[in-house]
Amino acid sequence: MNKFIRVNMTTREVAMQETPEKYAGLAGRALTSTFVYDEVKPTCHALGKNNKLIFAPGFLSGTTAAQSGRISVGAKSPLTGTIKESNSGGSFSQKMAKMGIKALVIEGMPADDKFYIVKIDMNGVVLDEAPAEILNGCGNHEAIKVLSAKYGDSVGIALAGPAGEYRLPTANISFKDPEGHIRSAGRGGLGAVLGSKKVKAIILDDTGAPLSVPIAKPEAFQAAAKAFAKALVTHPVTGKALSAYGTDVLINILNEAGGLPAKNFTAGRIEWNDNISGETMNATITERGGEGKVSHGCHTGCIIRCSQWYPDKNGKYITSGFEYETVWALGADAGIKDLDDIAYLDRAMDDVGVDSIDVSVAIATAMAGGLLPFGDGKAALEAVKQIAVPTPMGRILGGGTAIVGKLCGLFRTAVVKDQAIPAYDPRAVKGVGLTYATTPMGADHTAGYAVATNILKVGGYVDPLKKDGQVELSRNLQIATAAVDSTGMCLFIAFAILDIPEGFNALVDMINARYDLALTADDVTALGKSVLKTERAFNAAAGFTNAHDRLPEFFEYEPCPPHNVVWDFTPEEIDEVFNF
Amino acid sequence: MNKFIRVNMTTREVAMQETPEKYAGLAGRALTSTFVYDEVKPTCHALGKNNKLIFAPGFLSGTTAAQSGRISVGAKSPLTGTIKESNSGGSFSQKMAKMGIKALVIEGMPADDKFYIVKIDMNGVVLDEAPAEILNGCGNHEAIKVLSAKYGDSVGIALAGPAGEYRLPTANISFKDPEGHIRSAGRGGLGAVLGSKKVKAIILDDTGAPLSVPIAKPEAFQAAAKAFAKALVTHPVTGKALSAYGTDVLINILNEAGGLPAKNFTAGRIEWNDNISGETMNATITERGGEGKVSHGCHTGCIIRCSQWYPDKNGKYITSGFEYETVWALGADAGIKDLDDIAYLDRAMDDVGVDSIDVSVAIATAMAGGLLPFGDGKAALEAVKQIAVPTPMGRILGGGTAIVGKLCGLFRTAVVKDQAIPAYDPRAVKGVGLTYATTPMGADHTAGYAVATNILKVGGYVDPLKKDGQVELSRNLQIATAAVDSTGMCLFIAFAILDIPEGFNALVDMINARYDLALTADDVTALGKSVLKTERAFNAAAGFTNAHDRLPEFFEYEPCPPHNVVWDFTPEEIDEVFNF
Repeated sequence: MNKFIRVNMTTREVAMQETPEKYAGLAGRALTSTFVYDEVKPTCHALGKNNKLIFAPGFLSGTTAAQSGRISVGAKSPLTGTIKESNSGGSFSQKMAKMGIKALVIEGMPADDKFYIVKIDMNGVVLDEAPAEILNGCGNHEAIKVLSAKYGDSVGIALAGPAGEYRLPTANISFKDPEGHIRSAGRGGLGAVLGSKKVKAIILDDTGAPLSVPIAKPEAFQAAAKAFAKALVTHPVTGKALSAYGTDVLINILNEAGGLPAKNFTAGRIEWNDNISGETMNATITERGGEGKVSHGCHTGCIIRCSQWYPDKNGKYITSGFEYETVWALGADAGIKDLDDIAYLDRAMDDVGVDSIDVSVAIATAMAGGLLPFGDGKAALEAVKQIAVPTPMGRILGGGTAIVGKLCGLFRTAVVKDQAIPAYDPRAVKGVGLTYATTPMGADHTAGYAVATNILKVGGYVDPLKKDGQVELSRNLQIATAAVDSTGMCLFIAFAILDIPEGFNALVDMINARYDLALTADDVTALGKSVLKTERAFNAAAGFTNAHDRLPEFFEYEPCPPHNVVWDFTPEEIDEVFNF
Repeated sequence: MNKFIRVNMTTREVAMQETPEKYAGLAGRALTSTFVYDEVKPTCHALGKNNKLIFAPGFLSGTTAAQSGRISVGAKSPLTGTIKESNSGGSFSQKMAKMGIKALVIEGMPADDKFYIVKIDMNGVVLDEAPAEILNGCGNHEAIKVLSAKYGDSVGIALAGPAGEYRLPTANISFKDPEGHIRSAGRGGLGAVLGSKKVKAIILDDTGAPLSVPIAKPEAFQAAAKAFAKALVTHPVTGKALSAYGTDVLINILNEAGGLPAKNFTAGRIEWNDNISGETMNATITERGGEGKVSHGCHTGCIIRCSQWYPDKNGKYITSGFEYETVWALGADAGIKDLDDIAYLDRAMDDVGVDSIDVSVAIATAMAGGLLPFGDGKAALEAVKQIAVPTPMGRILGGGTAIVGKLCGLFRTAVVKDQAIPAYDPRAVKGVGLTYATTPMGADHTAGYAVATNILKVGGYVDPLKKDGQVELSRNLQIATAAVDSTGMCLFIAFAILDIPEGFNALVDMINARYDLALTADDVTALGKSVLKTERAFNAAAGFTNAHDRLPEFFEYEPCPPHNVVWDFTPEEIDEVFNF
C-alpha cells in the first residue's frame, strides 16, 4: 500500500508518487488530518483552490479483519471551517487498499465549469468528462446506475450528489456499497469540496489487484482476527442489539433515559416512541418482507450488520443505513410520527447527497422557526427534494442547521461550530455534551461516544446526569476514537474493545501482524493524542479558540424535561477535556 | 444628561437610574461599547435573553453644534458575532440628549410572542402593546405613519422593521428623520436584537424638555461651534462636493481610480458609470423637480447636507439617504444600470428594514451564484420585497452576503467576519482594506475611512496601490473614528478636521465648553484607543483571533483590473494595525 496519488484539477495532471516517508506510518484519520495540517492553509476558503481533499483507507483496510472497511476523507470543512475527517462504509476503502493506494489527493480547481470523473485502475488514473445525464440535479441513485453501467458493476464509486455539485454546506460524499446502495461520509460538507474541484465522481476499478493486502505475519494475523471477531460476537451490543434492531434500537433506550431531544431540543422524552423505535422498524421490515432485510452490512467483512433494507408497504426497497440519528431528528425532534415518511426522507437525502443528520436537524429547526409545518413529513420531503433543483428552500435546507437557525432568527439552534448536534441531549447525557463542545470536528457524537458509558454501561458507568467523571470519559473516548478512526475499523468495535480486553489486544495484534510491528496499547493512545493535537493545531491556526468549545447558550438556562437538567459545566471544566 | 434607563423585557419593569459613575465620562460609541463589554457575556447568543441593546447620544448631541445628531446603538451583533456599534441620523439622538437621557438599555426577553412599544416622555417610560396593523410584515414607511398618528408627528421613533421582527441577520434599526423619512443604524443586525426583545418601536416624546442641553460655558461653546462650522463650510468635500452630489459623487471618483468593485468583485472599473453617478443623480433630481431635493440633511443642524430626496419620473418622492455604497453595490457590483431601479430597491430595503449595504452586496453575490439574474433590478426588487413575507428567497437575502455566499457555494464572497465588504476594492484602495480586515466591527469602511487619504487626498496622501504607510493610516483613522463616533458627530466631519487644524481644535473646544473640561488632542486619541481596545477585548473573549482579521482569500490571488493588483499584505503586516 504505497501509492500516493495526487490529482491536480487546475492542470488536470496526475502524480503517482511513492508515499512520502513522513506518512508511511499513518493511515485513515491519522493520515488525512496530518496531511491537511501539512498542506492546507488553515485560513483558506474551504471551497477555494487551496483546499485539498484526501481519501485514505485505514491501517487494516483490505485485510480480512472484520469491520475494516471504512474510508476516511479529510479536508478543511466548508460547514464548520475546522479540519474535518468524515468516514464511510462501502467498498472504496478495501478496493483502495488492495490496489496499493495509500492516499488519493484531489487538489486545485479547474477554471472552467466542466465536471470530471476521476477513474483509477491498476494502469493508472484517467480524467473523463462527466456524462451530462448525471449532472444538474440527477439523483445519486440514478447516477450510481449510470456510472455502474459505464464503468462496471463491481467498481467502487465516490460521488458528489446534486448538493455537492452546488457546493452546499451539508453536501456529503456518497459511496456505493457492495449492493449498489449508498453509504455516506456525511458530516462537514466534504461533498461540496469535491464539487468545488469539479469532480463529480471517483471510480475505483480493482480488476487485477490482489485479493488481499500483504500481511507480514499471516498466522498471527489470522489468530488475532479470530479473537477480534469473537469479541464482537460475544458483546451484547455488537453481537446482538445492533444486528437485531439497527442503531435505531437507541430510540427507546434514550427515550427511557430522558435524553432523546424532542421538539427542537425543548424536551428529552416523547410519547410516540413506539412509532419510530428500532423494535417497530424490525417488526415492520419483518412483516412487509419483499426486499426488506432486518440486518445487513455496509461493507464486506462486516459482522455487526447494523444496517437494514427498509421496504415500503409493497416490499419494495426504500432505503438502507437508516440510522438512529436520522430517525431521531425527523421522528422526535421534528415530530414526524410515520416511519415511512422518515424512510422516504432518508432516501431523498441520500439521493440529493446531504448529511442526513445536519439536514434532518435543520428540518426540525425550520419547523420551530415557522419555515415548515411542525411534524409534516410530506412537506419536509418536498423541501428536501428541492435541494436537487435547487430552489431557495432547497438551498436553505442544504445550508444546514446553523444557517436555518439564522434565517429563522432562532437562539435555540442546536449546533457547535456550525455543525448540528445529534441525537443525545447534552443536558441529560453530559459526557457526550463535552464531546460535542470540544471535538475538533464540530458537534459529533462519534468523536467520543460517551453515550456508551453514560447510557449503555459499556466501558463502566458514569452517571449521565452528573458532572463527575465526564471530563475524563470524553477525553479518553476522543483519544481512543481518533486511533480507531485511523484503523479503517467501524467505530462500533469500540463497544467490544472497551469491555473485552482480549478484543482490544486482538486489534493491536492485527496491526502488528499486518505490518510486522510491536505496538502496545500505549502506542495506540499516543497515536490518538497526536491526531487530536494535530487537528486542534489546525483549528487554532484557522481562528478557533476555547470560546468555540461551547454549547449553544440555551442549554445553560432551559431545563430539559423529564429530568429538568441544564448544561452546567463551567468553561474551565470544559477546557479540561483537552488538557493532555 | 444623567438618566440611565433600563427596560427589562423579561419582567417588563423599567428602572430609571442615575448614570453610574463609571459611565459619566462616556457617550456615544465609547459608552455603548464599554457597556456591552461590561454587561454582555461575549459567548452569549446574540438573539438570546442575555444580549443587551443600548442607545446613547454623543458628547455633543442636543447642542447647537453642526452635525451633532448621530445616535449610537450597541450590542453583540447577530450578523458578525462581534461587539457592534452602529449609528444613525434622525432626531433620536438630539431628543434623548435634551430629555436628559444618557443611555437607554433594552434587556431580557419576554416569554410570550407579543410585541411592545417602549414610549418615553418627560414623565417616564410606558410599555404599550404594539398595534397589530404595524406587525407581520407592515413596511416601515407605513409603520412610521401609524406611530406618528398615534404618538404625535414630532416624536422620535426607533423601529424594528419586518426583518427585525423576523430577527434576520441584516435587520437594521430605522429612525424617523425630521421629515418623517427613514434613516438607519444599518450594519450588524441590531434590528434583530430589538426584535428578539419583542420591541417593535421606541417612541421619544420630548414635549416639555429643554430646547438644548445645558452648556457649562456658553460663550466659549458658541465661539467654538462657529469655528467648527466654518471649517466644514470651507473644506471642499464637506462644503461643496457632498451637498452637490451626495455621497454618490464617489462613483466617478472610484471608477477613475480603478477601485470601484464590479460584477461581484471581479473588476475595479465599469463602463456604465454615467448611468449611476452622483452627477447623474443630481441632474435627474433637478430635471424631475417635484418632491425631489438635491441636498438635504438627515438631522437638525446638519450643514453638510449629503442626503437628497430622489423622485420618480412624475416628481414623486421615492427615497432619501440614497448613498454611494448602495448605488455602488446595486449599480456596479450587481450591474443594475438604471438609477430608478436602484432607488426603488433602496426604498424597499428601508421599508423592510435591512442594511442596504449587506443586502445589496448579497444581491450581487446571489447574481454571481445563479440565484438571481445578473443585472436584473426588477427581479432583485421582487426578491427584496419578499423579506416582508418572508419567503425562503426573502429570508436568504435578509440573511446577508455571507449566507448567500454559502448557499450559492461561492468562494468569491466579499465579507469579513460575515459582514459585507463595501464599495472600495481592498486590492486597489489598500488602506481601507486594512480597515475591513482589522476593525472590531467586521468589514466597515466607516471604521477607518482610508479612502480619504488614499483617493480623496484628505489628511495627506498615501498611494492606494502601494502598501507603504497604509498600516499607520488605517490605525490612526480607526483611533480617530472611535473618538468621533463618541461625540454624536457625523463621521463626515473627519474630512474637515483632518485637513483644517482649527476645525479639530474647535471640536475639542466644544466638548470642553459643554462639560467644563480641559481635554487635549491627546485625550481624544487616548479615548479612541481605549474604545478600540475595549471592543477588541470583547471580541477576543467571544472567540475572535488575528486569523479573523483577514480578507477573503480570493483577493490574494485574483488580480483586480484595471491595475491588476492583488491583496498582498502578510498576516504579520495586517496584525501591526492593532499594535498600539
